[in-house]
Amino acid sequence: MSDALKQSYCLALDAMGGDNAPHSVIAGAALCNKKHPDVNFIFFGDEDKLTPLLEKFPKLQAQSKIEHTIDVISCEEKPSIAVRKGRKSSMTLAINAVKDGRADAVVSAGNTGALMAISKLALRPLEDIDRPAICTFMPTRKNGNVVLLDMGANATCDAENLAQFAIMGDAFAKAALNVSDPKIGVLNIGSEELKGHETVRVAHQILSEEYTHINYSGYVEGDQIMSGDFDVVVTDGFTGNVTLKAIEGTAKLITSKFKHGFKRSIFGIIGLLIAFFPLRKIFKNLDPRKYNGAMFLGLNGISVKSHGNADKVSFCNALEVTINLIENKINEKIIEELKFNNNSSSS
Amino acid sequence: MSDALKQSYCLALDAMGGDNAPHSVIAGAALCNKKHPDVNFIFFGDEDKLTPLLEKFPKLQAQSKIEHTIDVISCEEKPSIAVRKGRKSSMTLAINAVKDGRADAVVSAGNTGALMAISKLALRPLEDIDRPAICTFMPTRKNGNVVLLDMGANATCDAENLAQFAIMGDAFAKAALNVSDPKIGVLNIGSEELKGHETVRVAHQILSEEYTHINYSGYVEGDQIMSGDFDVVVTDGFTGNVTLKAIEGTAKLITSKFKHGFKRSIFGIIGLLIAFFPLRKIFKNLDPRKYNGAMFLGLNGISVKSHGNADKVSFCNALEVTINLIENKINEKIIEELKFNNNSSSS
Repeated sequence: MSDALKQSYCLALDAMGGDNAPHSVIAGAALCNKKHPDVNFIFFGDEDKLTPLLEKFPKLQAQSKIEHTIDVISCEEKPSIAVRKGRKSSMTLAINAVKDGRADAVVSAGNTGALMAISKLALRPLEDIDRPAICTFMPTRKNGNVVLLDMGANATCDAENLAQFAIMGDAFAKAALNVSDPKIGVLNIGSEELKGHETVRVAHQILSEEYTHINYSGYVEGDQIMSGDFDVVVTDGFTGNVTLKAIEGTAKLITSKFKHGFKRSIFGIIGLLIAFFPLRKIFKNLDPRKYNGAMFLGLNGISVKSHGNADKVSFCNALEVTINLIENKINEKIIEELKFNNNSSSS
Repeated sequence: MSDALKQSYCLALDAMGGDNAPHSVIAGAALCNKKHPDVNFIFFGDEDKLTPLLEKFPKLQAQSKIEHTIDVISCEEKPSIAVRKGRKSSMTLAINAVKDGRADAVVSAGNTGALMAISKLALRPLEDIDRPAICTFMPTRKNGNVVLLDMGANATCDAENLAQFAIMGDAFAKAALNVSDPKIGVLNIGSEELKGHETVRVAHQILSEEYTHINYSGYVEGDQIMSGDFDVVVTDGFTGNVTLKAIEGTAKLITSKFKHGFKRSIFGIIGLLIAFFPLRKIFKNLDPRKYNGAMFLGLNGISVKSHGNADKVSFCNALEVTINLIENKINEKIIEELKFNNNSSSS
């Protein structure tokens, strides 16, 4: 890498993580390179496999270097074992590049649990953040997207954790999605003050009374998550993970019923062919690849998880989310908001 | 009502509950009457409004009687206040008819919280059931349906509660959906033993080691709820309520994106017209009206909640679910399974 390159952003990529690695990682980076020609990449993985793939994209190659390792953390590996045995793995080395300041962020489509555990260990939580959280976003019935956290890093949370998630989600919506004053809600089973369990009620109180510098707007029910009325929805990692996956499952159910119903009817097939262009537009809008890139928020460094089965388009989207997070200084935003809050509570 | 009628089932209907009451209640009962001409109805509500509606359906009228009251519990009323002030309401009187043994079940499309609170107070929990739960069912990617509980009666639950929900869900799947040996799962954020929080892990252990007479099959993730791999999915009322509503929200999002996308394209409209019949079949299969009827399980009596905005078709489906539950002796099944379990644990 030339000296000039060091001035722009650098992404450390776990080139061996995910179902379609290393192909989709390199091809995704090549797509990203077309849109962001100044961004540099370090690919961590098997040089023998990566070099011929990289040679297909000379412009990307000019912005990249490979750091060789043959160790890979498999998808099935338990996080605790991955931490111990995966010290020379492509994932760990990529994370360490962020820790050492050689890269601005790490992106991996590999083992989620391992990525969280190793990122947490290597990058450490931000000061004043008790629990880092997984943050993602999805489409809404209106034009914008909605940010959701925690998506599974913490199976149980207390009220203070939820309040901190609100701060982190606020910063994520600003940095990744360019929302100026994100409207934030806490996921609950009703909109009245007394609904839900104590954790959400206390979080509601903290956010209403103490976190006055963010736009906290009360409880959100499950059917409002994607209504477009809120920009950020905060919940514990158990509910968040189940909800996110239930949403994916519902989309799968509807798609499978449609496919099955149309396949068995000639009128269905003709109708679909005629409606091809509007249908393509609708599917493009709902394409889950557009919403790839979940950040492990609250660490001293940016660690982004891509879907394990990401193709190049999907992986490129995760890279673009990452670039937005670097450019818009996600962690500085979080630190600022936490300071604002600490100052106002101590004053 | 003639003496002969007393021999067959009798449903107590809160004729004034729900957005479309009393019209949809009477018209829904009329639809049900065509399929189940022997079932009797007691309509609780304003006689002046109900009599002219009932006169439109002479066959239904012959199987019905009206018990007059002008008191109605509104949708906004807090359950605690509804319990105190609603003693003469159509809902309370309908529930009391079950308590007094004059009806085999109560069905209401009114205030959910009030229906739960008043049903619990009047009917009392079954012996050995610590927490009654709301139970519903929905379509899957395969042919069958999946039963879910708790959908919001208990914002927090312990492991023993979840294990009891499994027993109740098992009985519901057998009685309402005619599944012979329901495959039961506990909702979690992963399928490995160590995933999730302590409550689900202990529930998993109780179900695996002690509840050996039901077909418990391990953890279910959010995207598997509607996969068709499980017949019953058990969770706490917070997660269940959020998940159920998130599923509804996803269906709404997809429908709205389709409507919007097609409306703006002439090819879309022509395509839709040609594909009308297969589309109608698909929508019929996914029609939420087919899945109306959530039972408040674990009480000495059958109390069924219809969607608040149910039309006659939807309300009729809730009535049919109720008839299945009576016919197949849901509560006797629950008591039997609990006894089986108590005997095997004490032996």
